[in-house]
Amino acid sequence: MDAAALLDRLASLLDPGGVLRGDDEAALVRYCRDWSGDHVGRPLAVIRPGSTEQVAESVRLCFESGVPVVPQGGNTGLVAGGIPTEDGREVVLSLERMNRIRTIDAASFSIVAEAGCILADLHQAAEAVDCALPLSLGAQGSCQIGGNVSTNAGGVNVLRYGMTRDLVLGLEVVLPGGRIWHGLRRLRKDNTGYDLRQLFIGAEGTLGVITAVALKLFPRPTELHTAIVGVDSVAAALDLYARARTGLSDLLSAFELIPRACFDLVLADRPDWQEPFARPTPVTVLMEASASGLVDVGGPFARFLEDRIEAGQVLDGTLAQSRAQAAAFWRWREEVVEAQHRRGRHLRTDISVPIAALADFIAAADGAMAAIVPSVRAIAYGHVGDGNIHYNVLPPAGLPLPEAVALLAHCEELLFTLVDRFDGSISAEHGIGRLKRSHFLQRLTPVEASLMRTIKSGIDPAGLMNPGRILS
Amino acid sequence: MDAAALLDRLASLLDPGGVLRGDDEAALVRYCRDWSGDHVGRPLAVIRPGSTEQVAESVRLCFESGVPVVPQGGNTGLVAGGIPTEDGREVVLSLERMNRIRTIDAASFSIVAEAGCILADLHQAAEAVDCALPLSLGAQGSCQIGGNVSTNAGGVNVLRYGMTRDLVLGLEVVLPGGRIWHGLRRLRKDNTGYDLRQLFIGAEGTLGVITAVALKLFPRPTELHTAIVGVDSVAAALDLYARARTGLSDLLSAFELIPRACFDLVLADRPDWQEPFARPTPVTVLMEASASGLVDVGGPFARFLEDRIEAGQVLDGTLAQSRAQAAAFWRWREEVVEAQHRRGRHLRTDISVPIAALADFIAAADGAMAAIVPSVRAIAYGHVGDGNIHYNVLPPAGLPLPEAVALLAHCEELLFTLVDRFDGSISAEHGIGRLKRSHFLQRLTPVEASLMRTIKSGIDPAGLMNPGRILS
Repeated sequence: MDAAALLDRLASLLDPGGVLRGDDEAALVRYCRDWSGDHVGRPLAVIRPGSTEQVAESVRLCFESGVPVVPQGGNTGLVAGGIPTEDGREVVLSLERMNRIRTIDAASFSIVAEAGCILADLHQAAEAVDCALPLSLGAQGSCQIGGNVSTNAGGVNVLRYGMTRDLVLGLEVVLPGGRIWHGLRRLRKDNTGYDLRQLFIGAEGTLGVITAVALKLFPRPTELHTAIVGVDSVAAALDLYARARTGLSDLLSAFELIPRACFDLVLADRPDWQEPFARPTPVTVLMEASASGLVDVGGPFARFLEDRIEAGQVLDGTLAQSRAQAAAFWRWREEVVEAQHRRGRHLRTDISVPIAALADFIAAADGAMAAIVPSVRAIAYGHVGDGNIHYNVLPPAGLPLPEAVALLAHCEELLFTLVDRFDGSISAEHGIGRLKRSHFLQRLTPVEASLMRTIKSGIDPAGLMNPGRILS
Repeated sequence: MDAAALLDRLASLLDPGGVLRGDDEAALVRYCRDWSGDHVGRPLAVIRPGSTEQVAESVRLCFESGVPVVPQGGNTGLVAGGIPTEDGREVVLSLERMNRIRTIDAASFSIVAEAGCILADLHQAAEAVDCALPLSLGAQGSCQIGGNVSTNAGGVNVLRYGMTRDLVLGLEVVLPGGRIWHGLRRLRKDNTGYDLRQLFIGAEGTLGVITAVALKLFPRPTELHTAIVGVDSVAAALDLYARARTGLSDLLSAFELIPRACFDLVLADRPDWQEPFARPTPVTVLMEASASGLVDVGGPFARFLEDRIEAGQVLDGTLAQSRAQAAAFWRWREEVVEAQHRRGRHLRTDISVPIAALADFIAAADGAMAAIVPSVRAIAYGHVGDGNIHYNVLPPAGLPLPEAVALLAHCEELLFTLVDRFDGSISAEHGIGRLKRSHFLQRLTPVEASLMRTIKSGIDPAGLMNPGRILS
């Protein structure tokens, strides 16, 4: 079957609008361009099946034709894992039409949703039954749950609730070749044989297409308290984190580090924004704690901050008095991302190191970046509780793109070498995709490489399922 | 290399006492008999390497000789996964000499321990740095952490902290053939490629020998409150659970169901024990909640119970006033296990169903058991919060062993058929091993079977790593 015949077969299989051909550039653009705008691909076609059976049959047809399949969610990933290459050979399989919530069961604290459901919609559905789905990301208004599971998404609540992996009870997956694995169990505990879910979580679509997921829900927090506090160093923030975990009995749900450089960056664009503290501090931390029912976390949170102010560890701090005030605190964090985005091409990382090593890592990275001429601007912020920092780098303004790209690649190389020295990870949450593949492969030991290739070639012997992502 | 030559090579590789030969029955018995005493095997030899390199070299030698390797921890499993078969062909590889804690890091909330460390020793080590390792099992005084990870052990704290899988940060594993995977990372987040840890957690030693593990630690609870409460049905207990999760903001760490039949069983052996309530209730629940630092869970717990007593849902209840009183409550739960053990051969299960279906499942199972003649005695208790019940069956006293075995097999068949009807699991925590293999294989779909066999044959092509466990 040649490409044209394949597309005709797919068109007759799927509902109207189910196949967008590669020559229809206007319709295709949103499936081909990632959120950063740094990467644009060109597919053979985009297909949009509406059921698990249609996904399975589509995959089967593509595999019979030797055509690679690229599963795609909300296209909010940052490693070009879900956008097609530029060679016009890949079929993008968008899950956006599979967007039904199949069941929601508050008594069992579980939800079963199709892969194309938008994360924010699942938040609302959970809240409607007095539960919470605690996966919280900047992209939640457009990312899809299938993509979240495929990439094992992180976000700001990981320190309390874990990564997406920790929330998954069951999966439905279309395997390479088109067979369906019906693994949508809703059990809290199941110890029967190899845990097949784990293969597909975080595999970035290279082992199959996740079509539906069963997830854990939690009691909906009825109190949520947000504080913004200033400390004098990253080390002080780390110490504050350890004390807060213990002091607030793991009811801490977020602990985000925002060093001074981030405020300077935001204020350059938003000169009218008022800083949280009269006297700026070297490091700011956004903390959140929540509880439900009869448990009071607001009182302990306030007492904790008072203690730390008295001890001289917290230089200044405000506990939000309203949701509006809390949202204003969070806007600083969100605007850090936007401010970088507005500056065009820059280096985004999502490295992690053992928590206790974070301050030393940042100091070493700052030293390495400061040594680079022409000088670059490092913007490091993120999830202290997970040892996970977005250590990003902006090139000097006005540097021509090819030079900026080369400079950022050099910075990345230096940073990742440092990550190795600290026994860290070059990707704590974004994954590998196509962008980090060479860095990733370079660090794999021969044993790890052979285990991963054994899995890939065992499950996708034709190598047509999201090829060139993670592994080459 | 024949068996004798292999044993000589192993003896020269390992320290004195490192090889116990198969003819030394007295020395071997504790490696060949499981805790229940129902199953006894006969190995070619037992080897006890003292380092990862010795494990690797031992595995290499066995594989070269075509001799199967059975990794063994504390021998507290219940599915004959770690005891040898009776054919005298297998080498048992005991991890008991690998019992060092390599590092413990309170600031990063992590511990790295060798596989042979006893779980209770790790509890103590964590407490010494003001942390907690929240894996809590009846067998904790003798089970080994390598076995806990290999079997993805559960226990009473799963509802709050997850299964062992959820606690693992990194692993060191000797693979089939003897290569070593050095995967002892201590990162909270790492999204680089396929998560190889997941292959080995819960694989029951069929994909390699876990030699060391890195685990998450948690803040040590500084308050722990235990209550025993009576309700009038399993359904009422389930409703109480959902309310308690929300009401106590997920600070609930245990919620154990003990129906009346369990008390009758214990009282038959312990007529002098005083029942917790003046007027016995159909169902009793053991609840525990804990917190650290500034958070008060004792007050909310007491208020929660008062509310539920007032609402008529809790018929009677006592909040322990001391650790001694709490221990006395827990002794009822522990004695249920002992009382069954004293009665000799019986059916042990560890099934799970979706939480909301638990009451209906137990009612249906009780109906099915009541219909069996000669009448058997069902003892069902366990972890409500996980939908996981030990639905056990005692044969009539005095029934000859072969008839008892046949009767219990019949009961198991009926129960597992019911589990299927409730979309449950035939093993929520014990695993498959050799005992549940045929029930397990029977229920595997062709897709699941092919995925699992792909993994097994890809990683252990010679099929010598704990063969016949999980898969045939």
